[in-house]
Amino acid sequence: MRQEHKETMKRRRRNIKLTVAYDGTAYHGFQRQNKCVAVQNVLEEILPAVFGDSIEIAAAGRTDAGVHARGQVVNFFSDGMIPIENIPKAANRLLPKDIVVTEAQEADRDFSALHSAKSKIYVYQLYHSKVPDPLLHRYSWQYEYKLCLADMRKALTLVTGEHDFSAFRAAGGALGMNPVRTIYEAECKQEGAMLTFRFWGNGFLYHMVRNIVGTVVKVGNGRLSPDNFAEIMQAKDRNKAGKTAPARGLTLWHVNY
Amino acid sequence: MRQEHKETMKRRRRNIKLTVAYDGTAYHGFQRQNKCVAVQNVLEEILPAVFGDSIEIAAAGRTDAGVHARGQVVNFFSDGMIPIENIPKAANRLLPKDIVVTEAQEADRDFSALHSAKSKIYVYQLYHSKVPDPLLHRYSWQYEYKLCLADMRKALTLVTGEHDFSAFRAAGGALGMNPVRTIYEAECKQEGAMLTFRFWGNGFLYHMVRNIVGTVVKVGNGRLSPDNFAEIMQAKDRNKAGKTAPARGLTLWHVNY
Repeated sequence: MRQEHKETMKRRRRNIKLTVAYDGTAYHGFQRQNKCVAVQNVLEEILPAVFGDSIEIAAAGRTDAGVHARGQVVNFFSDGMIPIENIPKAANRLLPKDIVVTEAQEADRDFSALHSAKSKIYVYQLYHSKVPDPLLHRYSWQYEYKLCLADMRKALTLVTGEHDFSAFRAAGGALGMNPVRTIYEAECKQEGAMLTFRFWGNGFLYHMVRNIVGTVVKVGNGRLSPDNFAEIMQAKDRNKAGKTAPARGLTLWHVNY
Repeated sequence: MRQEHKETMKRRRRNIKLTVAYDGTAYHGFQRQNKCVAVQNVLEEILPAVFGDSIEIAAAGRTDAGVHARGQVVNFFSDGMIPIENIPKAANRLLPKDIVVTEAQEADRDFSALHSAKSKIYVYQLYHSKVPDPLLHRYSWQYEYKLCLADMRKALTLVTGEHDFSAFRAAGGALGMNPVRTIYEAECKQEGAMLTFRFWGNGFLYHMVRNIVGTVVKVGNGRLSPDNFAEIMQAKDRNKAGKTAPARGLTLWHVNY
């Protein structure tokens, strides 16, 4: 039945790819929920008015509650006639201010926002200050204790490459899933009190970026050495890693196809 | 009676000066309101628990609904015993995340956050893009039409100096007030798509910064020439100036004493 429904969707004329940015503060993540509002709920509610048919979207990544996106990508099939260049304006007129369609493209029939993704970039912002900043609060983790940037960068080099990332997988994540991922780049830039982590990889496990950041910060604070960090990765033991860094600092920055 | 009450307050031992930052999105401005929540309501509600006596604050500037602050300054008299260095933490524990006390100082008895202010700096952010950015929406005015930065800068040089700013005073403002102010610096910096206006002056009329920005943008868009801008200032005619720029782009940046 579900398969049949999918086939019906695929018989539609167009495969539309949208790039979507959102402030995730008010939403229970990206993925559709029954009892609370996720970004997907909002998109699937307004897109029928733009396309004239019911819409079911698939997304590149399920961001968690409170996580933001600059370059989330979704696709869906539609027979709607609206010219591609009119879609962002038409959608944004109906969307709340914290969700924006930034780009629309006609995609090949076999394009899937989820399965065609080759790599993703996540950015994590940490505001290193004893005093909170209310204008940065929604988009960063304020951390008031000492941090050694050199040690944090040592830990980040250990993350780069192909590894089993079980140590940084959420306790509640799907354990059946292959925990091996390749991280092409993991860096931390400092600009004033703002530390900006950037992770580019072929895929990420549930909570992986936030768990890496939490553990790297534990290294920066001196409660773990870079050697301990390497041991934790090798032991694949989530219990020895640091806390999951708060969702508000994380942004799905870009998806490469 | 009111005067008597003021004298009672002044007999208190300490004059406390606080620097306060806030995200103004959720508040009906700074000044205390009866029927809706202003930043002052929130501060006066939590400060008694920090100081142990009732608190009435005076502020350097009344920011409008939706306007933000990095360096708002308030003062009040108290007999509370809390050491000065403990005040920010104690207050921030009780404050919501969008209001933060960033600094506390013991002030001279005759210090007044309002009357002792020598100059203020306001910053206005304009996001020049056809596509909105949900992560910038709370803190900037998105403007999608063409802008000539050179012409805008010509208009800003006309603002600098001592002038009668009646043309940029809110229609509903107190007309009795002297409309002459001195602007020491009025500039606009571009960084990518973000235009950041900075106004440093000895004082500002109600809505003055937002009206200047609205009119400068009209010049940038070519609907007024820099010469027209000069004429509007000289004619002191609010009706010929541009629209009031949205509150969300404005931040009270700093107050000098």
